[in-house]
Amino acid sequence: MTALRERRDAAIGVFDSGLGGLTVASAIAAALPDEDLLYLGDTARVPYGTRSPATVVRYARNNVAFLKERGVKLVVVACNTVSAHALGGLADGGDTPVLGVIRPGARAALAASRGGPVAVLGTPGTVRSRAYEDAIHELDPERPVHAIACPLFVPLAEEGWTDHAATTLIAREYLAPLAGTGVDTIILGCTHYPLLQRTLRAVADDVLGTHVTLVDSATAVASEVVRFLDATSGRRPPSTTTHRFFVTDAPERTGEVAARFWPAARGVEHVDIKIL
Amino acid sequence: MTALRERRDAAIGVFDSGLGGLTVASAIAAALPDEDLLYLGDTARVPYGTRSPATVVRYARNNVAFLKERGVKLVVVACNTVSAHALGGLADGGDTPVLGVIRPGARAALAASRGGPVAVLGTPGTVRSRAYEDAIHELDPERPVHAIACPLFVPLAEEGWTDHAATTLIAREYLAPLAGTGVDTIILGCTHYPLLQRTLRAVADDVLGTHVTLVDSATAVASEVVRFLDATSGRRPPSTTTHRFFVTDAPERTGEVAARFWPAARGVEHVDIKIL
Repeated sequence: MTALRERRDAAIGVFDSGLGGLTVASAIAAALPDEDLLYLGDTARVPYGTRSPATVVRYARNNVAFLKERGVKLVVVACNTVSAHALGGLADGGDTPVLGVIRPGARAALAASRGGPVAVLGTPGTVRSRAYEDAIHELDPERPVHAIACPLFVPLAEEGWTDHAATTLIAREYLAPLAGTGVDTIILGCTHYPLLQRTLRAVADDVLGTHVTLVDSATAVASEVVRFLDATSGRRPPSTTTHRFFVTDAPERTGEVAARFWPAARGVEHVDIKIL
Repeated sequence: MTALRERRDAAIGVFDSGLGGLTVASAIAAALPDEDLLYLGDTARVPYGTRSPATVVRYARNNVAFLKERGVKLVVVACNTVSAHALGGLADGGDTPVLGVIRPGARAALAASRGGPVAVLGTPGTVRSRAYEDAIHELDPERPVHAIACPLFVPLAEEGWTDHAATTLIAREYLAPLAGTGVDTIILGCTHYPLLQRTLRAVADDVLGTHVTLVDSATAVASEVVRFLDATSGRRPPSTTTHRFFVTDAPERTGEVAARFWPAARGVEHVDIKIL
């Protein structure tokens, strides 16, 4: 593997099934203001969370190939579904390291927790994969984990209904099983969920009767990228930076939805990627 | 064009972006109990409602090609988004007629209306296309039409939250602009919406202060298919029938979601279709 320090001027590649991963790209940009970023949202095939694992793996390989062709030094998989199903095979022994969102989220949750059980909110696919449970249990085999599928949160976030009474009602129903569990930390295990953070905190505090720490996987991944670049001398020296945004389909509202996740995401470009 | 009566024993093909079109297939099966049905749900590429028109047209052509290869006598496009964007080009002068959902829905609404304005609820793509307005105005150029995009109804229907308080709250917000308009008929302009019928009727009656007729495009299309086969002597004589169901991706919950739309939809088969 070419040492990362020899490619430190190359961009960091970030991909997600859609635009939600812009919360991750935005957290990385805030933590690493000297890095170029190249974002790919596979909007032609979104959502991944309801697709079969084999299909998710195939799409993810194509996204990685697209970013590698453009010479990124590091690929960040800003998609919980891909991180859950496909991360192992994506690096393929090549030159470009691949980081996912699950382990950083698990690590951040255990660091934030006061020792109680941890809850994970995610898409049905992420929850079925048990990837967060596995990642937490690698670090702390005895820690109880409650995983809850919240399929309506993605459309609510995309529609901008972040503080609506209906969102509160829906969150209350999803989180009800946590009452009495003693959970003190909740992982927002989907890139869309940070948009619902205010509503989720209010509902969680209320359901659990205590102050709950919400762990946002976007921030956790950004910290992981900082650690990784520092450990490999892969940080780019201070410089002017370029952020580029690609999507595989560009319907009319793309710019509007992108701005919900990262107001600075401008000039989204449409690109066709080969699906093999 | 080969006369339809010479191919009357062939199946009726129905396709949709996903499983919602099963409401249309089910209405056709109820109206035409002697016909074989072949259903294709393009679940690998669902949803179409948020994709660009060019992409929708490409996917629709592939679905039609799949059904034609299997020798169907008629293709029913059980997808409002495709009917809105792509219907014109799908028949391509070939042997197989193609029917959409928009015109039958518009016709049924004008037949049901007491002469007042008509409302259409649909996905953002269908509403932006203005296809229902155009179809209604072809029949009655002066009729006022109110079209409302209801993006959260599809996920609510797919999750089975058909009578939930959150669904009522969301419906109340979507329908609020209809207050005082005098609308007496509402077209459910998306195959998923018939599942929310009970909630929508209660909210609509309340918002409009009068009894509103809901026109379900599934039932309207089924009547259109009956009329079309009668006019072309294309009905199959009484016979035992086969209903087959294909999907382009089959994640774990496919059977469960399919049953929400048509409890008789069993034995869903996975098929790869070529995307050209």
